[in-house]
Amino acid sequence: MGAQPLTPVAPSQTRTAAEEARTLVAQGKMAALATTSEDGTPWASAVLYAALEDGTPILCLSTLAEHGRNLTREPRASLMIGEAEPAGDPLDSGRVTLAGRVEALTGEAEEAAKEAYKAASPASGLYGGFGDFTYYALRVDRVRWVGGYGRMDSTDAESYHAAEADPTAGGAAYAIKHLNEDHAQNLLDMARVLGGHPDATEATCSAIDRYGMNLNVQTPRGFTTTRIAFAETADKPGDLRGATVELARRARGE
Amino acid sequence: MGAQPLTPVAPSQTRTAAEEARTLVAQGKMAALATTSEDGTPWASAVLYAALEDGTPILCLSTLAEHGRNLTREPRASLMIGEAEPAGDPLDSGRVTLAGRVEALTGEAEEAAKEAYKAASPASGLYGGFGDFTYYALRVDRVRWVGGYGRMDSTDAESYHAAEADPTAGGAAYAIKHLNEDHAQNLLDMARVLGGHPDATEATCSAIDRYGMNLNVQTPRGFTTTRIAFAETADKPGDLRGATVELARRARGE
Repeated sequence: MGAQPLTPVAPSQTRTAAEEARTLVAQGKMAALATTSEDGTPWASAVLYAALEDGTPILCLSTLAEHGRNLTREPRASLMIGEAEPAGDPLDSGRVTLAGRVEALTGEAEEAAKEAYKAASPASGLYGGFGDFTYYALRVDRVRWVGGYGRMDSTDAESYHAAEADPTAGGAAYAIKHLNEDHAQNLLDMARVLGGHPDATEATCSAIDRYGMNLNVQTPRGFTTTRIAFAETADKPGDLRGATVELARRARGE
Repeated sequence: MGAQPLTPVAPSQTRTAAEEARTLVAQGKMAALATTSEDGTPWASAVLYAALEDGTPILCLSTLAEHGRNLTREPRASLMIGEAEPAGDPLDSGRVTLAGRVEALTGEAEEAAKEAYKAASPASGLYGGFGDFTYYALRVDRVRWVGGYGRMDSTDAESYHAAEADPTAGGAAYAIKHLNEDHAQNLLDMARVLGGHPDATEATCSAIDRYGMNLNVQTPRGFTTTRIAFAETADKPGDLRGATVELARRARGE
């Protein structure tokens, strides 16, 4: 779609579905839980979740609530997590569904879950101790990620747990804003020299991740998009600055 | 909870569960849908919905997506809608679950649904016409509203459809901000004269709706909350100003 590149563009790694899923799970607190009500109707409710190191979601639910009662009858459930602050068309934003079955936790596993959950919901130190509350782990069987229009993929539990959340995700929104507000010429250089569009007249950053950045590009041949790979994978939010400075220098021929 | 009122407080109507539900449904675009997957697992997914005049949710779903396929087998479903911009503790914010069964629309009902949906998702004028997309109405059987910690209620389809969304909801966030930033003395007067706490030392507005406003109040006897009824029910966002000005005058003894 859009104007084709006129010069070669270095291939750029993108996040896998498992990485996208882990990134969404790592950023959020609220999710939608689907359970099965007594009459068989699937029941959507709002929950606060925490995630263990391997991405396993932790829930703390009361049997005074319908979802809590539902899980005592039918442990199969799924959890849908969206972007915390989607910009623009909400259907073009990321979300993931993790499906599996919940397991009520006891002993050391329950203690670890309590600790993780308390970081997400400080008040759970109080209510989590009430007799009607149970700590659950969602044992993930399958994962469906949707990144937006036409961007979607499935993955399995093994790949999900083995993947790493993008450690730069927390810095992406600021980086995009900063690049677009203060570095229009650098972005245009990148689109022209590295992005395959030497005739570009305008370029803005639409997304950035640990592997590279996406540009929206205007050319006399029409609108298009391109992706620019970082020289090195970024490992923390602060690395995005160095990675984009390196691109800007390369685009200037330095 | 908190310090008890020392002087009488006029009773104030609050929104019913049906009004809360209609208000949440009226404000949002994105919701979580629960359907039942082929293996029986409840499946949570993100959807964009529109609402008809009577609050009936409209969906436009593709059979290329799991939720779309699920509904062709099992029409029972539920939709969870939360506050668009919850402030503070997300567990203390409003959400509602509408449970029932979806009905694929045809003829005039489909045309009406398309029109409503297009207002929520302009792009649906394009994708909604593709052969894999179906317009559905969720025929609501029961409604569960949760307003936050300890605030929850159920209602039935008849009450839900008969209720009106709070027409002032779109002005609430601005009104709260404006009152707290620029009218601290007025709020304190209200807490002292109308809210039952003549010894109040500080008051801030935590919520406002067509029937009145909630105040957080500091007193030498401790923290408390109170609710102040408007003289008249507000019928549009702009009415919140007049209603609070009237309260401020009354609190000053004018």
